[in-house]
Amino acid sequence: MQKENKNLGIAIVGLGGAVGTTAVAGSLLIQKGLQDKTGLPLAEFDNLNLTAYENIHFNGWDIFDDNLYESAKKHGVLNSEELAAIKDELEAITPWKAIANKDFCSGVTDNKISEYSLRDQVKIIQDNLKSFSEEINAPVILINLASTEHAVEVTDPIFQTVKAFKKALDDDSKKISPAMVYAYAAIDMGTPYANFTPSMGVDVPALIHFAQERNVPVAGKDGKTGQTFVKTVVAPALRARALKVDGWFSTNILGNRDGQALAKPESLQSKINTKGSVLDSCLNYKVENHMVQIHYYKPRGDDKEAWDNIDVTGFLGHKMQIKINFLCKDSILAAPLAIEIARCLNLASQRSEGGPIEAMSVFFKAPLTADNKEPEHRFAIQQQNLVEWLHQDAEKGNTAKIKAPEGEKSLV
Amino acid sequence: MQKENKNLGIAIVGLGGAVGTTAVAGSLLIQKGLQDKTGLPLAEFDNLNLTAYENIHFNGWDIFDDNLYESAKKHGVLNSEELAAIKDELEAITPWKAIANKDFCSGVTDNKISEYSLRDQVKIIQDNLKSFSEEINAPVILINLASTEHAVEVTDPIFQTVKAFKKALDDDSKKISPAMVYAYAAIDMGTPYANFTPSMGVDVPALIHFAQERNVPVAGKDGKTGQTFVKTVVAPALRARALKVDGWFSTNILGNRDGQALAKPESLQSKINTKGSVLDSCLNYKVENHMVQIHYYKPRGDDKEAWDNIDVTGFLGHKMQIKINFLCKDSILAAPLAIEIARCLNLASQRSEGGPIEAMSVFFKAPLTADNKEPEHRFAIQQQNLVEWLHQDAEKGNTAKIKAPEGEKSLV
Amino acid sequence: MQKENKNLGIAIVGLGGAVGTTAVAGSLLIQKGLQDKTGLPLAEFDNLNLTAYENIHFNGWDIFDDNLYESAKKHGVLNSEELAAIKDELEAITPWKAIANKDFCSGVTDNKISEYSLRDQVKIIQDNLKSFSEEINAPVILINLASTEHAVEVTDPIFQTVKAFKKALDDDSKKISPAMVYAYAAIDMGTPYANFTPSMGVDVPALIHFAQERNVPVAGKDGKTGQTFVKTVVAPALRARALKVDGWFSTNILGNRDGQALAKPESLQSKINTKGSVLDSCLNYKVENHMVQIHYYKPRGDDKEAWDNIDVTGFLGHKMQIKINFLCKDSILAAPLAIEIARCLNLASQRSEGGPIEAMSVFFKAPLTADNKEPEHRFAIQQQNLVEWLHQDAEKGNTAKIKAPEGEKSLV
Amino acid sequence: MQKENKNLGIAIVGLGGAVGTTAVAGSLLIQKGLQDKTGLPLAEFDNLNLTAYENIHFNGWDIFDDNLYESAKKHGVLNSEELAAIKDELEAITPWKAIANKDFCSGVTDNKISEYSLRDQVKIIQDNLKSFSEEINAPVILINLASTEHAVEVTDPIFQTVKAFKKALDDDSKKISPAMVYAYAAIDMGTPYANFTPSMGVDVPALIHFAQERNVPVAGKDGKTGQTFVKTVVAPALRARALKVDGWFSTNILGNRDGQALAKPESLQSKINTKGSVLDSCLNYKVENHMVQIHYYKPRGDDKEAWDNIDVTGFLGHKMQIKINFLCKDSILAAPLAIEIARCLNLASQRSEGGPIEAMSVFFKAPLTADNKEPEHRFAIQQQNLVEWLHQDAEKGNTAKIKAPEGEKSLV
Repeated sequence: MQKENKNLGIAIVGLGGAVGTTAVAGSLLIQKGLQDKTGLPLAEFDNLNLTAYENIHFNGWDIFDDNLYESAKKHGVLNSEELAAIKDELEAITPWKAIANKDFCSGVTDNKISEYSLRDQVKIIQDNLKSFSEEINAPVILINLASTEHAVEVTDPIFQTVKAFKKALDDDSKKISPAMVYAYAAIDMGTPYANFTPSMGVDVPALIHFAQERNVPVAGKDGKTGQTFVKTVVAPALRARALKVDGWFSTNILGNRDGQALAKPESLQSKINTKGSVLDSCLNYKVENHMVQIHYYKPRGDDKEAWDNIDVTGFLGHKMQIKINFLCKDSILAAPLAIEIARCLNLASQRSEGGPIEAMSVFFKAPLTADNKEPEHRFAIQQQNLVEWLHQDAEKGNTAKIKAPEGEKSLV
Repeated sequence: MQKENKNLGIAIVGLGGAVGTTAVAGSLLIQKGLQDKTGLPLAEFDNLNLTAYENIHFNGWDIFDDNLYESAKKHGVLNSEELAAIKDELEAITPWKAIANKDFCSGVTDNKISEYSLRDQVKIIQDNLKSFSEEINAPVILINLASTEHAVEVTDPIFQTVKAFKKALDDDSKKISPAMVYAYAAIDMGTPYANFTPSMGVDVPALIHFAQERNVPVAGKDGKTGQTFVKTVVAPALRARALKVDGWFSTNILGNRDGQALAKPESLQSKINTKGSVLDSCLNYKVENHMVQIHYYKPRGDDKEAWDNIDVTGFLGHKMQIKINFLCKDSILAAPLAIEIARCLNLASQRSEGGPIEAMSVFFKAPLTADNKEPEHRFAIQQQNLVEWLHQDAEKGNTAKIKAPEGEKSLV
Repeated sequence: MQKENKNLGIAIVGLGGAVGTTAVAGSLLIQKGLQDKTGLPLAEFDNLNLTAYENIHFNGWDIFDDNLYESAKKHGVLNSEELAAIKDELEAITPWKAIANKDFCSGVTDNKISEYSLRDQVKIIQDNLKSFSEEINAPVILINLASTEHAVEVTDPIFQTVKAFKKALDDDSKKISPAMVYAYAAIDMGTPYANFTPSMGVDVPALIHFAQERNVPVAGKDGKTGQTFVKTVVAPALRARALKVDGWFSTNILGNRDGQALAKPESLQSKINTKGSVLDSCLNYKVENHMVQIHYYKPRGDDKEAWDNIDVTGFLGHKMQIKINFLCKDSILAAPLAIEIARCLNLASQRSEGGPIEAMSVFFKAPLTADNKEPEHRFAIQQQNLVEWLHQDAEKGNTAKIKAPEGEKSLV
Repeated sequence: MQKENKNLGIAIVGLGGAVGTTAVAGSLLIQKGLQDKTGLPLAEFDNLNLTAYENIHFNGWDIFDDNLYESAKKHGVLNSEELAAIKDELEAITPWKAIANKDFCSGVTDNKISEYSLRDQVKIIQDNLKSFSEEINAPVILINLASTEHAVEVTDPIFQTVKAFKKALDDDSKKISPAMVYAYAAIDMGTPYANFTPSMGVDVPALIHFAQERNVPVAGKDGKTGQTFVKTVVAPALRARALKVDGWFSTNILGNRDGQALAKPESLQSKINTKGSVLDSCLNYKVENHMVQIHYYKPRGDDKEAWDNIDVTGFLGHKMQIKINFLCKDSILAAPLAIEIARCLNLASQRSEGGPIEAMSVFFKAPLTADNKEPEHRFAIQQQNLVEWLHQDAEKGNTAKIKAPEGEKSLV
């Protein structure tokens, strides 16, 4: 394996959003030495074959044509001093026209290139990716950070095989969402792909098989930033102590554009679906009273607050409660994960790994697996798996992942 | 390995305390089918060689001579209906006279057998253990659940070697605490020993070497029930996400006898010392603002509340907060751990393992290790190590513990 | 004014519910000296002309025909020891058949006496009240504690005048809800009436005028127990400190029968409507982001938890947050208020006061006023008004209520 | 009464502190139209005879000789944009040399003018006040915002009479604290005085009598900003509902200079003393388990967090809990109160009111009263009293304050 080409491009769907602009601005601030690497989960693995943060370039698509300085200013994540220091660089980036479709995301107000056929859309996306790669003379990763789309009917025959999907593309099927068009376009040209949103992207049999066929690394979906992160950390420990979870009531309040989209029932459903089974999986039984509420609450802006109330039964039937209140910042948690996901996908690509990269499950609420396998949700195990995977190069050929001990009940 | 002798005796120092009586009462309720095994961490490993909960017998020492029914009633952990169902069994148990010493625990009001020499005290303890073992025709484990004693001067020469310690016993040294006398007595007669309290027990070089010499399994110290449990669960995840912990402010309020003892500055110090380094160890750096407060607050009785406030810095220097409020019950969390510790020590004994059983670290705030090794504090890793250890019999000879990946920084 | 007749009867709609049974059981425990008067707001005013708690008798209607011992056991508010002490008295009370109507409350499974005409229903209610009064030889108060009914179309002409309402009764109008039938029946026979629920009862012009005509004291509606209580305490203080409320996010989780009813969207709407304007009234401006969530969450049973998050802006635009977490018990807060409401209505009746008793506003989320006047919502002012009103007898003829100072902005 | 002289000077002890600089900077921002009057409690009473915020001038003393721009920058309360807008004005103010004394405040590092005799110190303070008043051609108020001094032995004979105090001044008594010297100097020259700190200032019989003799308005002490504010709002409501407070556990974490001073046990004692009796007074009984913790916790800077846990018993002995978590900013809450206190004292002075102005109790944790009268602590009553007092001019001669109804138990 070589590390000659040390640069990397990240092409973002939804580049002008809060997470996208924060990722770009943050990278620029780090490159200028104005910020350190706090909050970047893999910063401490810098002796491995991951692209240096300083060598990452960004571009991408958006339905708004504001340059990134204007977008970042609107989101209010970075303060005016920070933005001033990188104003020129941000102003120099104006997103490419995005594919978007009101049928899949009612928040879309300006429908840039949807007048084209699906095949033309694929072509346009691939042209963007090629130009970007040539411009920076480096490989490119595509990552979806766009607003959540409505749920798609995944059992439809067109999503079951590569062939059927290609046919549907040819037919300009209205069932294919923009997120899927981006996924197809990337895989088709060998570009690693990640889905950081709850939208349906690569996660249908047709596209997973397509990625396996082409040996293109893919990962997703739905970045694990706040409350689900907390759940997958805490629940395995409650199980280890045999504290029975009678109920887990989760409320989220957030006030950014993402929050507004989630306030729409159709999008919320996509979100809650990806959260649903995580808890049961960590505990190994079905929690009867698991409730998740997500509310748009304007005073918070990009800040987000999660309030979790956990009711447990302990020894001799005694009831106890754990309440966790996480006052966090959505984009500040999400942006570094997006960057790390791109670096890991690039590493996978260099190693010629293709299909779902399961070792990256720690980054996602609904980790993609090959062959319909149940994903691992427990945070500590996920993290161990990632660390093992990152060290595989150094350990030459040692590809064994840390597994939970044998025996169906013997889990952490 | 055989499982012929299926019974087990647990001899408790501080039998009449809230944790001791809850352990005894809980076991009786389970044996009578009036309670299930919720809250017992190893209930799901019942196919292994651990003693069945139904086959455990209790006895022990206390400075109060109330029978266990009277004690349990005073503690108010179990309600009157539950106690009524096992009244006869509880009334039948009256603790043996305890060794106690006002120099080490100012809460001691009635100094039962301290007029005896240290050697005589050892003898009395050993006689109690022998009688108990003969009575139930089963091996016995000694576990310390007594009130916290003052800190001991651990660097004193008498605590450095087995020989020096024995000499000090002969000399009736005032530096030797009751907790140490119990530890010595147990090890000397081959009885496995655990210290569930913050007191100094087996954790001096002299006694650890003694346990190694005699090949007696020992474990400790300070049961990991509430806030430290939460810390060792959450902190590794913050590290994995590179969220820098700027401060961790922990407040505990509790209202039982243990709380009153901790309200005395000397005992509190023992407690806080064992909590101190745990967080830094989980994070791999020193947290500058780590504060732990423990307050006796009467309205709670045996209930306990922990309020943790965690200040973290994330990407681009942004500040976030996590607040964890744990409304728990001290004895309800502690009693099942005490039972599991005894079962594990018995397993170790059956396997002829001696000295500190490091695989049991998940149960303790300050895990005992051999040879001054840094203990593992991260909960998920500890739990994996325990599960691996429990499965060693089944896997015949596979004794490898799961380790954190090589490379000093590559941890979960 | 005389205090010759020292007894009082309380006739409860929904007698077998959690609040009703707790009120009855609590009174019995106090009468037997097994409980003190903690939690009874007017216990300290015992030198005034309020009926003694020991002299109160209960009866009422319910759609379930369990006796009160059976009902109380099901609700699980009181423990088995407490219930055992008053078993005989509780078993002796079996509710009268209730008026109920599936059109107004979908939770109603057994529609006892709805086959009768509205006029016959009125007659039946009045017969019950008369028998009860004769039996205890004392005046009676009717109080509605039944499950919340759907919202009623209050602008309908039949609810605007006494005459139109009577005509609608004659016509057996389907627009008249059971709660209104009870209100009419009570007022018509001179029985003071209170509505502790969010249902539409006396609070339409027709019935308020009817109460004024007949000079019957009435009060309501929707008992102020948990979160609204907190709001009306805290909001006036925020206003006094000029802390601008940008948002107030309220979440409630509760797990009793009432919670299940509220989980139905139609009933929830009635509830949220009565909560809506309270906050704005206390602050004297419209809070842009005021959100109220009520969720049925089974693990809590009769316990209830309110989590309020308040976002305020202070001096120089700085943002601050207040979070209030109230772990309460619904029936334990509500039952004593119901008792005090009855005592106050009896006092009003003795004083020959009729129509809405505004001095009782402290007990309600949506206080009833005469002549469409804006109600006072600020807790401290309401409490002062109540205390003044209670002292009017002693101060002979001094009927001036404490008012907020003149000048529209000069409020507490 | 006339309003000829429309300007007002505020002379602050501890001008360079976080509260002082925030008050000055905030006033400047408002005067420049860069901030509105949010957070200023009396902004809505602008039609009364209070000095307009635009007409207030500041000066004062400090032990550090940084100009106010430098000080404000260090405190980090205002951001750099806000400070830039008023840089010139802030740089133009450099505090006068302060009286300070290591015997009373161990945090004092630079003991500016303590080499002078007490009488000379009085003279210097009075010279400063005179020059300031002449410079702005307006009356001046002195307000103490300095770091908390140690407790003073208040029962000492020198503090009991004006004569004894003057004699002690002549004798250069070491028992007289700097805070007292400022108070004496102000009163002696007819300058209204307020003590916003927990230090012992005017609150000894000698100085209160002195203020009464000279008819100079004085007020104090210890600004009611955070947790005590919350207590005096919530506790009266709990009393009104007869919810018995079994315990109230209060923890504060804060990270500014004030927090460091309070971390010293002697200063903390002064603080906790003033908080102690407030709760009991609001409830009319002694709370057995009232605990107050104040901790210096660096990560918060000027932010402050209060966590209150309240254990109450309700009807039938049931236990409930209220937890209040106030994430506030110390100086942002305190600075506007300091400004309002000065405006009220000036109003009192214009009205020729002297001695303790009891109507100002709403601003203080330990309100000053005349003749050893028990102060009113309940927030809503205090606020009503203030509003009444403010309106006295308009209502010509109506000086009656709103009182709690007669009868010792009949309180809100």
